[in-house]
Amino acid sequence: MTRRQLHLNAFLMNTGHHEASWRLPESDPYAHVDLAHYVRLARIAERGTFDSLFLADGPQLWSSAGQRPAGALEPITLLTALATATEHIGLIATASTSYNSPYNLARKFATLDHLSAGRAGWNIVTTAGAEAARNFGLDAEPAHAERYARAAEFLDVALKLWDSWEDDAIVADKAAGVWGDDAKIHPPRHRGRFFSVEGALNVPRTPQGYPLLVQAGSSEDGKRFAARYAEAVFTAQQTVEDARAFYADLKARAVAAGRDADHIKVLPGIVPVIGSTEAEARANERVLEDHIVHAHGVDRLERLLHLDPGTLDLDGPLPADLPPESAIEGAKSRYTLVVELARRERLTVRQLIGRLGGGRGHLTFAGTPDQVADTIGLWFESGAADGFNIMPAVLPSGLETFVDHVVPILRTRGLLRTEYGDHHRTLRERYGLPRPANQHVIAPALV
Amino acid sequence: MTRRQLHLNAFLMNTGHHEASWRLPESDPYAHVDLAHYVRLARIAERGTFDSLFLADGPQLWSSAGQRPAGALEPITLLTALATATEHIGLIATASTSYNSPYNLARKFATLDHLSAGRAGWNIVTTAGAEAARNFGLDAEPAHAERYARAAEFLDVALKLWDSWEDDAIVADKAAGVWGDDAKIHPPRHRGRFFSVEGALNVPRTPQGYPLLVQAGSSEDGKRFAARYAEAVFTAQQTVEDARAFYADLKARAVAAGRDADHIKVLPGIVPVIGSTEAEARANERVLEDHIVHAHGVDRLERLLHLDPGTLDLDGPLPADLPPESAIEGAKSRYTLVVELARRERLTVRQLIGRLGGGRGHLTFAGTPDQVADTIGLWFESGAADGFNIMPAVLPSGLETFVDHVVPILRTRGLLRTEYGDHHRTLRERYGLPRPANQHVIAPALV
Repeated sequence: MTRRQLHLNAFLMNTGHHEASWRLPESDPYAHVDLAHYVRLARIAERGTFDSLFLADGPQLWSSAGQRPAGALEPITLLTALATATEHIGLIATASTSYNSPYNLARKFATLDHLSAGRAGWNIVTTAGAEAARNFGLDAEPAHAERYARAAEFLDVALKLWDSWEDDAIVADKAAGVWGDDAKIHPPRHRGRFFSVEGALNVPRTPQGYPLLVQAGSSEDGKRFAARYAEAVFTAQQTVEDARAFYADLKARAVAAGRDADHIKVLPGIVPVIGSTEAEARANERVLEDHIVHAHGVDRLERLLHLDPGTLDLDGPLPADLPPESAIEGAKSRYTLVVELARRERLTVRQLIGRLGGGRGHLTFAGTPDQVADTIGLWFESGAADGFNIMPAVLPSGLETFVDHVVPILRTRGLLRTEYGDHHRTLRERYGLPRPANQHVIAPALV
Repeated sequence: MTRRQLHLNAFLMNTGHHEASWRLPESDPYAHVDLAHYVRLARIAERGTFDSLFLADGPQLWSSAGQRPAGALEPITLLTALATATEHIGLIATASTSYNSPYNLARKFATLDHLSAGRAGWNIVTTAGAEAARNFGLDAEPAHAERYARAAEFLDVALKLWDSWEDDAIVADKAAGVWGDDAKIHPPRHRGRFFSVEGALNVPRTPQGYPLLVQAGSSEDGKRFAARYAEAVFTAQQTVEDARAFYADLKARAVAAGRDADHIKVLPGIVPVIGSTEAEARANERVLEDHIVHAHGVDRLERLLHLDPGTLDLDGPLPADLPPESAIEGAKSRYTLVVELARRERLTVRQLIGRLGGGRGHLTFAGTPDQVADTIGLWFESGAADGFNIMPAVLPSGLETFVDHVVPILRTRGLLRTEYGDHHRTLRERYGLPRPANQHVIAPALV
């Protein structure tokens, strides 16, 4: 019997996930628009036999370019360039269901899946925030539940589009002059609340059928959506107990929705700050903290918590009278995680900013390679994770250290593949998921 | 003084521009979703020191997959993959102003321009046809004039977005902890008839400032639009006299709009069918014609001419009582060109289908390499063209023959560069166009 193995995803972000990473001597402040930087990261991750790499995204410029590298290349486009620079690794792009049309977006992912020979993944987001809404003709962001209702219809339409060509719709009969079989091409003819989409996709069915579907919202709406559609879930969890509860809940929801619990993989995020000794790891962490500009952190925290500017005291606790999650229309689960973290660990605003600066609410862990591998192993073996979303504080060095020093330990322990191998070629295969059947084709056993 | 030289664009299309090309023994019927096919074409064009390559597009599946390869990879995505497989050649993607939002599309082109180090071009189309409209929530296509009004506002917004970062907005002061200068980032705050776009693009200004702007509609609306925005124009012209008139008219319109006549390059399309002798070229042409399925051609022609199915007689002329161009809401200039071609040359429907099967209204020319070079030289020297849109009937062989046999003649005659050279790096530079100033920066001489 094959032993269950970890799924590792490299979450790439400019010069690293720590907000001050760009200020280190090694960092290139122009890295975020430099293809060579991303090619280097992708190849390091592939050397570490990661399942996939991943880019977050939002269609807006965040508040201030003064604080840290702002803006980002569009992920599907960037990952297409990386597809040609790599051979095996999966390519997961974030794209919004609120600010795209299903026909265009389904087509782009189908294109990436063809060009990468089946390595495309879509991190489905509904995009919080008024800044994004105002770039697309709206004055304010749609309500949270409304965004998720649109996302569900978006997915239904996208699935119809990806299935609009049966796998054998191309006949290619040169002698008869017949290229395709129109009877095997199925226009969606969709008319719904948010979308009307009449015609078939103009791309044949792709190697994976459709991209791996990924989701990362942990609000009630988000978990309901994930249980129905997601094949991999990225999540921010601070303790193994919380992670276990989240894991069990999500698997149970998927089963309740009629799905196989193994067909939804749960990957908590971890920001590993690695040193050859514990002291060195702590020192590395301190160097990053010393580069934080706290005024920026206060500013961001006040926005996340919907507080007026100037409310927070850097050396005091969070205010006691914060509103409940249900009153928040933006990033609900992030809001609750941050408030609970501050209260559980009795952090001052300054300390909270230090913790968030490193991982924005994800588990930050400073330690030796063995300690990082132990933590990963513990979570993996105790029902808290199917794998991890690796979020290096500094890039490329943090990813390089992880691949050179933690990956060999995970391999020795039998927790991670030693090579990609030929039997798993697509991203979905690497995640242990079946290629989805086409909704227009009756399974042979049922005919 | 440097001699004026040709601009050559390779118009790539599946297995070739001839509708029957996919039926030839050499053709791969799955080529249109095969990255290797396009990489091969791009490298052939780069060996021929072409300025650029180009992909047409429409966000819909055309009528029937029975007739010929249907569907296409999304062009921006495909060209991004080709950017990494080439070094010099420009990459022009078609995208619709009717079925995209300015923020997303401006961002994708900015991303491609960064990733390709300044080789991105945008062929701006308004997208005719109800099929496309019905994939985006509309029941019918918007009126021609309405589509062009939206296109003009789309361009204004896109230009604001591409200029929203000044070139020196990134400060990268690590010591002070200041990455960007917010005073040099300018949100468009656009509120117009078709679009509201508040925020700055989340991509810094690109190597070219913005992609080369290309246009191909030759209707009255199309020419007005081209005179205002286009830096290169693709056009279908059947005779050198028509091409000369079109060329003079477009340059005059550009000058009237306050632009330099040299900053709008006119490239007629040509479908060269090449043989080592005239007889061989004709034979090559005949092989293609013999593979046409005429029923398909009748069907397409009836749709183009807005006739009921079954109206046309394969061996008779076009009906005498066709409506004028002004009554057509679709592809106006294509309609007129086809009707005039049939009448001028007194073609039967069968003959017309043969002519259109090769180039869809573009100049089809069967001859020896010298004859092809002569025609190109004649049009180029007599005020009919600044270069050509090369549309091989069969791909890759037609492009290979052109590069191996016509390109050397053009070089010997001093009409085409022999190498790319280091002084022209971006697509806009190759087309002899200046890098546009940022609209937020006052020219130094005026300060």
